[in-house]
Amino acid sequence: MTRFALTLEFDGAPYMGLQRQVHGPSVQQSVEEAAFALTGEVTGMHAAGRTDAGVHALGMKVHMDIDKPFTPFQFSEGMNARLRPHPIAVVGCEVVPDDWHARFSCIGRSYIYRIANRRAPLTVERGKAWQVPKPLDETAMHRAAQRLVGLHDFTTFRSTHCQSQSPLKTLDRLEVRREGEMVLIEAEARSFLHHQVRSMVGCLALVGMGRWEEARVTAALEARNRQALGLNSPPDGLYFVKATYPGD
Amino acid sequence: MTRFALTLEFDGAPYMGLQRQVHGPSVQQSVEEAAFALTGEVTGMHAAGRTDAGVHALGMKVHMDIDKPFTPFQFSEGMNARLRPHPIAVVGCEVVPDDWHARFSCIGRSYIYRIANRRAPLTVERGKAWQVPKPLDETAMHRAAQRLVGLHDFTTFRSTHCQSQSPLKTLDRLEVRREGEMVLIEAEARSFLHHQVRSMVGCLALVGMGRWEEARVTAALEARNRQALGLNSPPDGLYFVKATYPGD
Repeated sequence: MTRFALTLEFDGAPYMGLQRQVHGPSVQQSVEEAAFALTGEVTGMHAAGRTDAGVHALGMKVHMDIDKPFTPFQFSEGMNARLRPHPIAVVGCEVVPDDWHARFSCIGRSYIYRIANRRAPLTVERGKAWQVPKPLDETAMHRAAQRLVGLHDFTTFRSTHCQSQSPLKTLDRLEVRREGEMVLIEAEARSFLHHQVRSMVGCLALVGMGRWEEARVTAALEARNRQALGLNSPPDGLYFVKATYPGD
Repeated sequence: MTRFALTLEFDGAPYMGLQRQVHGPSVQQSVEEAAFALTGEVTGMHAAGRTDAGVHALGMKVHMDIDKPFTPFQFSEGMNARLRPHPIAVVGCEVVPDDWHARFSCIGRSYIYRIANRRAPLTVERGKAWQVPKPLDETAMHRAAQRLVGLHDFTTFRSTHCQSQSPLKTLDRLEVRREGEMVLIEAEARSFLHHQVRSMVGCLALVGMGRWEEARVTAALEARNRQALGLNSPPDGLYFVKATYPGD
């Protein structure tokens, strides 16, 4: 048996999410079916994170155990051939120890959220960013974001469907910057709650529009109540960028 | 009558091209239909350039004559509302003199071509770049590109369907650079022949792969023969970026 760690890139639009669902297509189903087509083996895919419906990934890490002998090059090329026409690609592949686990060994996760700050509807970026017509003050957003960095009870910024045992998380980094009409928000933590990034981005956007004073972000956090959330941003703009492991 | 100059952004994938076609959807048809829905007037759209099927635009300039009174803001907002769900957006709008013509007044056109230089199939960039698996030497491509800059007979780099009276064109700029896995090619000229950018990019890619020596680009140019073309690149990676007018 060989354990392969795969780096996946995918367009989340056609999927109900990363994890296998009974009611619709998932990234996991497509990847497991491609592995079966390639190897004839029924094998499970384990991922660093569980992205929602419509959320994209540039560097999701997953692992799979394969009995037949493959080099990483053969395995990734074979997978990519069988993943067509799904918008999922293996962009990295390596052999890892049998006790390496894409989810449980992961010590850091990072996301990027893209806001297209413009009045005109999106065309080439459609489904790849959140269009916000009102001008955003990215400097105010960045300042407000720093209020969320650190160890907090993120109950306000957590989906009511979140399965995490504790709402306590340490947010390591939340940075906001502008590149032309795009406002980019980068988030890093050991792990995130369900909808945490989208919830934080939604409130930061309210600050950017001037609808929330910066202090209200702290008030929302301290409320520890989902009802205090101002806005949950859509999945279109969210990308899982990178999973980090010991020794990286 | 007011003449509006519109800056259009569009995803070219669903269209047979910018210009109206009898056999399929076009950008022109969608824009003229949106104008009719907004104004009740049958008015023609005139564009700075005629992009091919599948070619995108970030800043195509067009003009339309409208009798009813609209401010540029009203006209662009109204057009964008009626262009939905087409992946076409008005990203700029201004009133221009009646003798200003999007095509005939234009004194410069620029394109960008995006090559995704990687083995893995495209996912979030699908349809938005040309995937070239073989490693490209962008420095060699840039050097070779300089052989095409200047006044030349571009017969080799011209579609057999090209309607231009002369194959003589002055290419002002052709620059190649890398940003991560993306190789970007920027082209500027007063005007281009049909398929000229895609044909130049195709030959530069052959240089980048090491399949053509740089001198062969000059040989292809001097052959003045479409048969000497090495490769025509696909439309997916091509974007019309900007049209320039006197006084810009």
